[in-house]
Parts: sequence; structure tokens; C-alpha cells
Amino acid sequence: MDQLLLPGKETWIPCANHKQVAACIKHMNVRGAPAIGCVAAYGLALAAQEKKFSSTQALITYLNSAKATLAATRPTAVNLFWALERMKGFFSGDSVKEIQETLEREAINIFEEDLAANRRMGELGAELFPQNAVILTHCNTGSLATSGWGTALGVIRTAYEQGKVKKVLVDETRPYLQGARLTAWELKKDGIPYELITDNMAAHMMKTEKVDAAIVGSDRISAQGDVANKIGTYGVAVLCKYHNIPFYAAAPTSTIDLKMSEGRNIPIEERSVKEVTHIRGSAIAPAGTVARHPAFDVTPRELVTAIITEKGVARPPSAASIAALFQTHAPKQAALAAI
Amino acid sequence: MDQLLLPGKETWIPCANHKQVAACIKHMNVRGAPAIGCVAAYGLALAAQEKKFSSTQALITYLNSAKATLAATRPTAVNLFWALERMKGFFSGDSVKEIQETLEREAINIFEEDLAANRRMGELGAELFPQNAVILTHCNTGSLATSGWGTALGVIRTAYEQGKVKKVLVDETRPYLQGARLTAWELKKDGIPYELITDNMAAHMMKTEKVDAAIVGSDRISAQGDVANKIGTYGVAVLCKYHNIPFYAAAPTSTIDLKMSEGRNIPIEERSVKEVTHIRGSAIAPAGTVARHPAFDVTPRELVTAIITEKGVARPPSAASIAALFQTHAPKQAALAAI
Repeated sequence: MDQLLLPGKETWIPCANHKQVAACIKHMNVRGAPAIGCVAAYGLALAAQEKKFSSTQALITYLNSAKATLAATRPTAVNLFWALERMKGFFSGDSVKEIQETLEREAINIFEEDLAANRRMGELGAELFPQNAVILTHCNTGSLATSGWGTALGVIRTAYEQGKVKKVLVDETRPYLQGARLTAWELKKDGIPYELITDNMAAHMMKTEKVDAAIVGSDRISAQGDVANKIGTYGVAVLCKYHNIPFYAAAPTSTIDLKMSEGRNIPIEERSVKEVTHIRGSAIAPAGTVARHPAFDVTPRELVTAIITEKGVARPPSAASIAALFQTHAPKQAALAAI
Repeated sequence: MDQLLLPGKETWIPCANHKQVAACIKHMNVRGAPAIGCVAAYGLALAAQEKKFSSTQALITYLNSAKATLAATRPTAVNLFWALERMKGFFSGDSVKEIQETLEREAINIFEEDLAANRRMGELGAELFPQNAVILTHCNTGSLATSGWGTALGVIRTAYEQGKVKKVLVDETRPYLQGARLTAWELKKDGIPYELITDNMAAHMMKTEKVDAAIVGSDRISAQGDVANKIGTYGVAVLCKYHNIPFYAAAPTSTIDLKMSEGRNIPIEERSVKEVTHIRGSAIAPAGTVARHPAFDVTPRELVTAIITEKGVARPPSAASIAALFQTHAPKQAALAAI
């Protein structure tokens, strides 16, 4: 679904080849770290089938080229690279047909595992919320950002099903307005009570009204538990610290980059400043305005109360608590069995 | 000048009577606490001349009604009420003509005193900045928000004249985008280097780049030094505290409400939520979205490094340091003499 047109229009973009998939990722028709991973995997499955190949070697050469194209779309979300590497593990086989079928099956696996992970995160995260909770969230982390259900918004959904959520405060999330356009759209569809606020109202709400927790997704989590996420997340975390409000991140373990120890080394995508100086094509600043557009920021682990994954909760986040998530697969298997 | 059309169009709205003036204040064609005070004073001077009066009593009755109309426009900025009360002190005289002339002269006095106060604040405030300073500001506090020059932006202007300002980080200031539309427009006209950011980028900038100070204006300051200002200001102050960056407010003493001890009692205007769900008439959220729109917030004095007024600097803000500003008129006289 073309997320750039939401909430005004619900339009699907059919993709006949991996280059169209790459363009959709680059231009943010699809966004959200787990969704990007799933879509990139399907992009490779599509690449394997989008033309005739005379040999397995010809196919593998083409796949490696397609993988490079898909990898060059967006730099911050690690799920993209994780999914592409996982797919690359199946760039071999006895026939073109076998490789094509294997890649299609693996893309489906990635999609289904993400969905199961979302459900499991929902269960683990909902336990952390009090009854009658007012929850603040930033950006969009729901069905649109994942294979379905959502990460942070998945936790909110599960908690709402359990009767624990009074209302959700939705940061509009400038400049792309993912909160106003996408999260509000998802919550409205689900009938979950919400209030839309501009990002700069969050502090006032925390001071003057009851806010029980903030929960966000992530585009990449370092091995020590630093959380890269949509620009504005770090500010929310500082405000939570000052107001003594728990700050949670929810993300599948595919978002954790064990090769990156410190969050400050995560590459931050700088997007076009026109996305700041213009809203829906209309200029909001004088012509020639110099603007900035870091699309993400990094919240250091000391501001994160806990990281919720499908394999368990790292609380507080640390190299040890993150490593422990990877030492047992039991919760993940349990989650898959529950589907 | 119609500030709602900036920066796209520079259009002036002629006002032939006080009701048109009141409408311009209410609909934010003119905004900024000191500017509202000046414009309201001219509104009363206009009311005295906008029709024929058979007696001084008929004029005074009409003036009291006009004063009530102008007072009912916006609740938070105290400069409005301060200017109206000051004008009311001249609702008497031996003839209709005398009252008309006195009110016109007093409106001009208020305007000229505000301009002198801005210049004096500029001098006092610029002393607080280091060399080569990167200064973050929120909302618009420049010529458009005052009689001219500006409060917080006036301090930045004076510091720039002194060669102390490297660049200004301009919060776009949702939902009305006063930063993107107005502050960027003023800085561009003056040739002062600036970078426009979305409000939620401020924390990231404070963490990853050099930010030497934040400075804002105010709509009302309590007797103890709590600062009501445009929504988002309180969040900036919390972020400054966390990053150990000085946070200044600049406002004329007409902004200080000595009758209001605690900032939490300052009335916060709730404006139409359509100003949040729509940008320039275009919906950014699903139809029926519940949104919030507190137009101001209150920054408690413990987060304010200093308050800069035309009568001196209250550092740190407290009942005592605020009261001291009113105990001597020397700096103000000096400022007036310097014009």
C-alpha cells in the first residue's frame, strides 16, 4: 500500500520487478524497519523470477546485483541488510527452478516469522503496562511498518485487547507525519482511543496529564542496547527520564545489530531538506531556506527502560541482557507454535 | 502585515475599526505577545475615532465596550491586558477631542517604549552569549511579534551585530509553523545564517552538534519567574537542562504578571484542533481524528537560566530577582535615552 498517500487514499502499488521494489523502499512508499526487511526479501524472490535465466550461475549473478540494488535504498534500518543476507544464504541450488522456489519460500518464512515475532512482542510488552494506561508513541510501528500487527503499536494493540489501554497519545512525527497519517489511521480502524498531538506537545502532556509510558519501535539496536529510531525519539526519551516515565523500545531481534557495539556508530540517513521545507508540495518556509533532515536519532541505552523482543525483554538494556536474548530460542519457538 | 500568509505573500490588512483589530488578533493575522499589546492599544485609539460621539460619557462607554471586545480575543498573553489597562487609565478628559488625542498619543508611547525595550533587551541579552555562538530559538519573537527588532530574536540580532552569532537553529514550531514561516523569513531578510529544523530534531542537535544556548520569548511570566510561551517551549527547556545548555527567556516587563505568583495558574489557550489535523487547509490525519491543541505551555523557573528584560536580567528567576526589576527604573530610562 502506498503509505505516502495515506490517510487520504488507499492505493496499492503492484511491483513486477525488484527495481520497482527498491524504488518503493527508497521513496518511502513502504517504510518501517521490519516491513522494509520483508519487502526486500520478496524483492529478491521476485528478482529470481522476473526474467528467464539460462543457468544457475546467470541467476546467482543477477541475484547479487539485485541484492546490491535493494541494499542501496536506505542506510539506517538494519532489518533490510539482515533480510538480504538471510536470502543470500539461499543463492545456490541444483536448478534455476529450485533456487526460485527456495527464495520464494524463504521470503514467506521471513514474513511469517515477523508476524509471529510481533504477536510475541505484544504479549511480552503488554505485561509492562499498568491498567488504564495512557501510552505515548512516536512514528508508525503498526501493520504498515511490519508484516502485520506491529512492534510498539503491536504491544499497544495486545494491551488494548487485554483492556489495559485508556488512550494512546500519537506524536504526529514531523517531517513525514507518520503518526498523523499512519498511526492515527491504524488506531482509528481498530477503534483504539487516541489523541493526535504535535511532537512539541509531548512534554506538556507529560507534565500536566497522566502519561504512563512511552513505547517506540527501532530501525537498529546496537549490541549494547542503544536504539536508533525515527528522528524525535531521543527527545521523547529525555522527556520520559525527566518526568520519571518508563521508555520502552519494541523490535524483533532482526533489528539488533550485534556487529555494532555503540549506537553512536549507527549511520544516520540524511534525507532531502525539501521534506522539511515543504509539506505535501507546499512551501512552508521562505525560498532558499537552509534546513536539516536527519531522518533518525540514537537513544542511548541509559534512557531506555527495556527493549522488548520476540525472544524476551532486555531490562535494562546492556551487552549482557542483549546477548542473553540470543542464547535461547525457546520463547521464539513458543511464539511460532502459538500461531 | 498578515502573518498567516507569510512567507508566501506580504499583504497588509487595513483596519478601520477596533472590531477588525480584534479579529486580526483572534485569528492570528497578528501574533506575538508584545505586538498584540501594541496593536490592542492602537485598537482603542481607533475605537475613540471610528465614529462621532455626542459626549465624553458616550465615548467612554464605547471605549469600555471596545476594551472588552479586544480583551476577549486571546487569554494567555498578558501584554494584551496590560496594554488595555494602561490605555484605560486615559479614558477621561474634558472633551471628546482631548480623549481621542490622549489615547492616540498613549498608543504611540506603548509602541515606542516596546521598541526601546527590545533594543535594551538586545544589549543585555547579547552579553550572555559566547563568541561564535550557535543559538536555538522557538516560535517567532522578532519584528513581527513586537513593535520591531524583537525579544529573543532581538537578542539574537544584537548579538549578530556584535559578531557573536555563528548560526541560529530555528524550530519550525508546529502547529502554526511560526519558526518556519516567520523567523526564517526575518533571519533571511537580515542575512543572519540559520538552519530550519523540525521541533523534534532539537534533542538530536543538542547531543550531536554544538548548541550554546536556547532563547525564547514569553506570553506571560509569573511573579516567581515561571515562563508561559508557545507550545513546545517547555520541552526545549527540559532538553537544555539534560544537555547542560543555558535556557533564556527575553520579554519586556509588560509580560510579567505580578498578580500571578505561580506559572501553573496561567490560563492556557486551547485553540481549534483543525490547526493540528490540517496544514494549510489540507488534512494530514484521518477524518474524525481526535487531536489536542494547547497553544502554550509553562516552563517552571527552575529550568530557566535567566529572564532578560529591559530593566535588567533576573538570574536565576525568583520572586526576589523579579521584584528587583521593578524597584529601579534606571536601566529603562537609560534605554529610552539611548534611542
